[in-house]
Amino acid sequence: MDDSEDPLSGLRQRIQAAFDPKLFEAMGHALIARLFQQAEATTSGESTVLNWHSPETNVAVARGSLTANLPTSTESLVERFQQLVSGALARGHNLHNPKYIGHQVPAPVPIAGLFDAIGSITNQVMAVYEMGPWATAIERALIEKLGAQLGLEAGRFWGIVTHGGSLANLTALLTARNVMLRDVWEQGLAGSSRPPVLLAQADSHYCIARSAGILGLGTKQVLKVPLDGRRRMNPRELDAMLTSLRKDQTPIVAVSASACATPIGAFDPLNEVADVCEKHGVWLHVDAAHGGAVAFSEKHRHLIEGIERADSLICDAHKTLFVPALCAFVFYKDGQHRFETFRQEAPYLFDPSAPGMAEYDSGTATLECTKRAAVYGLWGTWALFGPTLFRDMIDVTFETAARLHEMLRLADDFETLHDPECNIVVFRYLPKNHENWTKAEIGELNRRIRRQLIESGEFYIVQTNLDGIGALRVCVMNPLTDESHCRKLLEAIRRLGSENSRNVLSG
Amino acid sequence: MDDSEDPLSGLRQRIQAAFDPKLFEAMGHALIARLFQQAEATTSGESTVLNWHSPETNVAVARGSLTANLPTSTESLVERFQQLVSGALARGHNLHNPKYIGHQVPAPVPIAGLFDAIGSITNQVMAVYEMGPWATAIERALIEKLGAQLGLEAGRFWGIVTHGGSLANLTALLTARNVMLRDVWEQGLAGSSRPPVLLAQADSHYCIARSAGILGLGTKQVLKVPLDGRRRMNPRELDAMLTSLRKDQTPIVAVSASACATPIGAFDPLNEVADVCEKHGVWLHVDAAHGGAVAFSEKHRHLIEGIERADSLICDAHKTLFVPALCAFVFYKDGQHRFETFRQEAPYLFDPSAPGMAEYDSGTATLECTKRAAVYGLWGTWALFGPTLFRDMIDVTFETAARLHEMLRLADDFETLHDPECNIVVFRYLPKNHENWTKAEIGELNRRIRRQLIESGEFYIVQTNLDGIGALRVCVMNPLTDESHCRKLLEAIRRLGSENSRNVLSG
Repeated sequence: MDDSEDPLSGLRQRIQAAFDPKLFEAMGHALIARLFQQAEATTSGESTVLNWHSPETNVAVARGSLTANLPTSTESLVERFQQLVSGALARGHNLHNPKYIGHQVPAPVPIAGLFDAIGSITNQVMAVYEMGPWATAIERALIEKLGAQLGLEAGRFWGIVTHGGSLANLTALLTARNVMLRDVWEQGLAGSSRPPVLLAQADSHYCIARSAGILGLGTKQVLKVPLDGRRRMNPRELDAMLTSLRKDQTPIVAVSASACATPIGAFDPLNEVADVCEKHGVWLHVDAAHGGAVAFSEKHRHLIEGIERADSLICDAHKTLFVPALCAFVFYKDGQHRFETFRQEAPYLFDPSAPGMAEYDSGTATLECTKRAAVYGLWGTWALFGPTLFRDMIDVTFETAARLHEMLRLADDFETLHDPECNIVVFRYLPKNHENWTKAEIGELNRRIRRQLIESGEFYIVQTNLDGIGALRVCVMNPLTDESHCRKLLEAIRRLGSENSRNVLSG
Repeated sequence: MDDSEDPLSGLRQRIQAAFDPKLFEAMGHALIARLFQQAEATTSGESTVLNWHSPETNVAVARGSLTANLPTSTESLVERFQQLVSGALARGHNLHNPKYIGHQVPAPVPIAGLFDAIGSITNQVMAVYEMGPWATAIERALIEKLGAQLGLEAGRFWGIVTHGGSLANLTALLTARNVMLRDVWEQGLAGSSRPPVLLAQADSHYCIARSAGILGLGTKQVLKVPLDGRRRMNPRELDAMLTSLRKDQTPIVAVSASACATPIGAFDPLNEVADVCEKHGVWLHVDAAHGGAVAFSEKHRHLIEGIERADSLICDAHKTLFVPALCAFVFYKDGQHRFETFRQEAPYLFDPSAPGMAEYDSGTATLECTKRAAVYGLWGTWALFGPTLFRDMIDVTFETAARLHEMLRLADDFETLHDPECNIVVFRYLPKNHENWTKAEIGELNRRIRRQLIESGEFYIVQTNLDGIGALRVCVMNPLTDESHCRKLLEAIRRLGSENSRNVLSG
């Protein structure tokens, strides 16, 4: 058929224009140039941090971007591309600004994002080895290295990467459920006469209780293990709970410990917890989403001593290994347990003519079927800079948090609320004559301070509740943050605190 | 403190070098130049498709890349970066080669990957609006547009984006479970005397049965709804099953229909299925991961007529909207149902001082807590090229599949196995004197052909089982594929079929 006669030829021309390598090249270089400008402005601290606009405003602008007139020439396409990129940056969050010290989401190594783009632009995916052979290979190599760094036994442990800590915890707890409650995968939980329980550190992340809800155990079946004075799991209390549960013959899915828990960054005493779990024959899971990375630091690795004794554990590279979201690792001490997560096959995926290949098909062990090539960023960062960069970033961010804490401790108009074990610092600003304020009023003042602080773009920090009262929370997730930024943060809070004190008291 | 005295200063210097915008700029431009070369070689079809190496070889090379000597100068860092990029491309999969016609994973619009890189490099994430304000805004705007395109009622429906079709189905079925079985979220399933069931199209994706396993229902509680002659859900059979289940008072979580199912791309008759579900008051879920995108095509949108009647449905933009993985949409016909998925809060996330904001906090409705900014690619593609590009890509890939099917139908040495409804074509090569072959032998021959075909890098297609016998499966997921590639595919299969026929018969 002559091309001109084919009713598809017009469509093909438009598609070829959109897929044209030269258009990609022009836009790609324009993107890098714009991101370079952005990097200079943000890392130097000249930019705002969060570019605040109300959700309603941003959604209205976003809507408009989808209904604008379409450019037709290459030149106008590139111009429109640049406008869209600039618009996205102008309305986004500048995590590389050293005054970003907010959620447990890092200012990532910028080059990690470039490596990530290789996987994205060429769409390397997993589920089956064939679809992402290099993605699979670097994932397996990184699992070996990270597992070894965490002290897991080579040849025995096994790991897999998934889309974030919540999914990683869910995957591990699903495996624990299927191992500890035989036949539940096939038969379901209905009909089991004794409702099983999950024990969790009282401060554990909300995704642990959610996992119980998702897995059909029920969120009310999560028993909170009491904490010690440093908000760490109390192993004696755990022992008492397990003794009582065993006596009642209550089925136990797992004990979920934290390294660290989110509120103040407390690390559970894993060796003592593991002793108790071994004594009672209970599956130990450790949520080390935030803290697993201390394995790279000689100074801080003591915080996770005993982690290698956990039956399952998770570690988020997109937190304290400073790569872009999402790249979460699940590890099993006994690699055989990976076969317990699911028990299915899809004929067009798992090829009986190449049975050994299934060992490398990630879809057999993850909640995702098609999985993004999530490890390119971590792989490239490791290959270029080695594990010393991870150690440096842990040591610097933890020490910066310690110095911030020391500044707060020495100041009369701040209240420290814990001794930081990592890069998380929770505190409150105290107004003049705060003896005359209620705790709730002080909490409310701190909340107002934070909201003004972040909406101005001057700093980005987080608010939390500690013992029911609002507090400020800093997590040093930008390795470029230093004491000068901490000092400026205190000044900014004092200024806003003074301005707002009258308003809070007057209601 | 003088910087030179600070024990952190050496660490800070190394970190600043890794975060240096100029290093990023140099590597960024080098990356674009290399990806441009790759795009030229792949889109023209000059490259191999899959670069095949055994998993063991690739893992060994990957291991080596993590233990190589580290470069120190900027120049040697950039050189090493280029080597790593080239190595990753040389061992990856070239989906942009028009001879890639394999899994339901697209050759994405290359510029979508550039947009994706903005989110990744600057690490825009969600969970809370503040962390990814623009990411949240474009997600909401795209949900509005895509929902409208699917025929959902504005102001009533609601949607959310998650990491892939399997998670999207799990999220929707979790919601259905919580709505249909009150109190299960809190109380769990243990103790319920009547085990609930989930009804699923007999050919539905394996993640549906997995969802039943994960949710504590049990994979054996999935009842398969029989198919008609075109492998579509048979509404009369569904009616009979629901009548019987209602009579027995068996709790019903949902009916899961497919648009389309994966084996041959069959679309269930959604209006008839919806009639039956309404009659029995049952939650209808539609897995439109692959087929939802036909909403953009006047020619093909009839395939999903009635989809707007589903209580929940999913649609993967990283399939037939041709953006990189992962970007999956979950929709609820009644937006109020989004509050049923989970019932928790994390105080440091959901800020009581800004209660209206929770409406925009995606973490309230997704399995992920930290969520990647998954919609940048789709947003940018839509904003640059408009919905006409999606229509063009659907129409071209579907028509190319139809033309391939016609070639196969007219050839004596191929067996067609269905009339394609979309871009999926399943068929078998038939050797000379195939009357003397068993079906199993023919299946085995087809498997061998495929393995040689993909390992040579000449083409990438998939194998599957149909009625227990191996078959070849093409999914036209590259809009650059045309009839000339289809003709060459047939030639390549014939060549390999002839070479292998003797081997299969001799055992």
